Amino acid sequence: MILDGNGIKQEILNDLKNEVIFLTEKPKLVVIQIGNDEASNVYIKQKVKMCDYIGYNYEHIKLDSSVSTEDVLDVIDKLNHDNDVNGILVQMPLPNHIDTSLVQNAVLPEKDVDGLSLLNSGMLMHNKDGLYPCTPLGVMEILKRYEISLMSKNVTIVGRSNLVGKPLALLMLNEGATVTICHSKTKNLEEFTKNADILVVATGKKHLITKDMVKDGATIIDVGITKVDGKLYGDVDFDSVKDKVKYITPVPGGVGPMTVAMLAMNVLKAYKIQRSK
Amino acid sequence: MILDGNGIKQEILNDLKNEVIFLTEKPKLVVIQIGNDEASNVYIKQKVKMCDYIGYNYEHIKLDSSVSTEDVLDVIDKLNHDNDVNGILVQMPLPNHIDTSLVQNAVLPEKDVDGLSLLNSGMLMHNKDGLYPCTPLGVMEILKRYEISLMSKNVTIVGRSNLVGKPLALLMLNEGATVTICHSKTKNLEEFTKNADILVVATGKKHLITKDMVKDGATIIDVGITKVDGKLYGDVDFDSVKDKVKYITPVPGGVGPMTVAMLAMNVLKAYKIQRSK
Repeated sequence: MILDGNGIKQEILNDLKNEVIFLTEKPKLVVIQIGNDEASNVYIKQKVKMCDYIGYNYEHIKLDSSVSTEDVLDVIDKLNHDNDVNGILVQMPLPNHIDTSLVQNAVLPEKDVDGLSLLNSGMLMHNKDGLYPCTPLGVMEILKRYEISLMSKNVTIVGRSNLVGKPLALLMLNEGATVTICHSKTKNLEEFTKNADILVVATGKKHLITKDMVKDGATIIDVGITKVDGKLYGDVDFDSVKDKVKYITPVPGGVGPMTVAMLAMNVLKAYKIQRSK
Repeated sequence: MILDGNGIKQEILNDLKNEVIFLTEKPKLVVIQIGNDEASNVYIKQKVKMCDYIGYNYEHIKLDSSVSTEDVLDVIDKLNHDNDVNGILVQMPLPNHIDTSLVQNAVLPEKDVDGLSLLNSGMLMHNKDGLYPCTPLGVMEILKRYEISLMSKNVTIVGRSNLVGKPLALLMLNEGATVTICHSKTKNLEEFTKNADILVVATGKKHLITKDMVKDGATIIDVGITKVDGKLYGDVDFDSVKDKVKYITPVPGGVGPMTVAMLAMNVLKAYKIQRSK
């Protein structure tokens, strides 16, 4: 069974749209872009489209690539103090001369809809309700919508990034999974992937996972995405793996769309956190 | 080979003592105790002794168990602003009517020598230099002193607490280990423990790990401690396991003493962070 990220995304956006209709003041997302990275332009377009669809207010602040870290911090400071702004997102990657960590952590935790700040990471680690990163949230939401329980399941996550592997491991641990985190230094990767009831792969290595590396009847979540000659590939060799497993996400159309859907949920959550104060 | 936590602790305290002799202003640790918990009294005594030995300044603030959260926050606020105070530690557990999380997070991150605040947890998750929790640091230090490498090793951690399991998993991932986190909901625990080159157990269940559950030649780190009829037991059945493995920590005298040694290191680290600002 193919796990349909696009379908779930559409359901979520519709639910949010129906909730936002009744709000007299609409939640507002501000995206800060520095420079003119091509991939960033694509991602930002998806976010604009999402905001339009749901009925969020939206502002795109475009800064020149020569801007200083201090100037970026000034912009963020104003947005932090602006009560009409509920979510602030600094589109990654930033130019090399900008202090990325300083910029990410300048956003008020309750407006940090990307969930990448140190404080929100700490909230996640301590299992406290906060704004969590969108991609791991998207993986959790797919499993939830298809009623795939994590309790006492063996999960293997391939990839130990701050963006996906580590936060996802913590989220899954909280749901009762036994979690193994593998990465480039892991020996005998297939031992761990074959043992997984649920296998999550987030490495960006095209078709790293082949049929002989997965368990019969497993659930496969493919977070990776690689572009070769204009075509998109996942970390899992989908065609060979799909007949052996019970559930699998496609690339594209699996985890990708979920990331935008989770951003949309985080914006409304941020709005509610701020209004309840 | 028995991993000698007491011996390493003594080495560390001696090193710190020799460094502190040359400081004209001595680092200062303040321990806040609320109520009169018996176990807390014992732990606090160990900390006083450590400070005396190294030559740290020390203050013990004892508050009545009926104190309010606000009063505790006021005490912490004064210590945060006191430049002579480098480390602040609120002795756990707190009485039920006190908001533990609020109190722990009121301590300035650079004075949080217990490393339990949300911000320091985020620092750990993002692999940024901060003040990390003492028990996981103690485990890492034992491995380091005995030159037991984590690179590409299979590590199994039994226990998913915020105090030990989760932070230790992150520390070990950063050193290149493949890490599996097991807990009370894990099925077939022995599959995971048997696969471990390095097995860390932190459950507080007396003799949970028996000889048949460990790999030949493994390294066993026992964080658990249970008192039965005045005698201390670890989570590992030491007598039966010790002849099968290469390295093992005893209980008592393994990880326990390391926790105080790492607190001592955190106090000097906090002092240096504050002086370098």
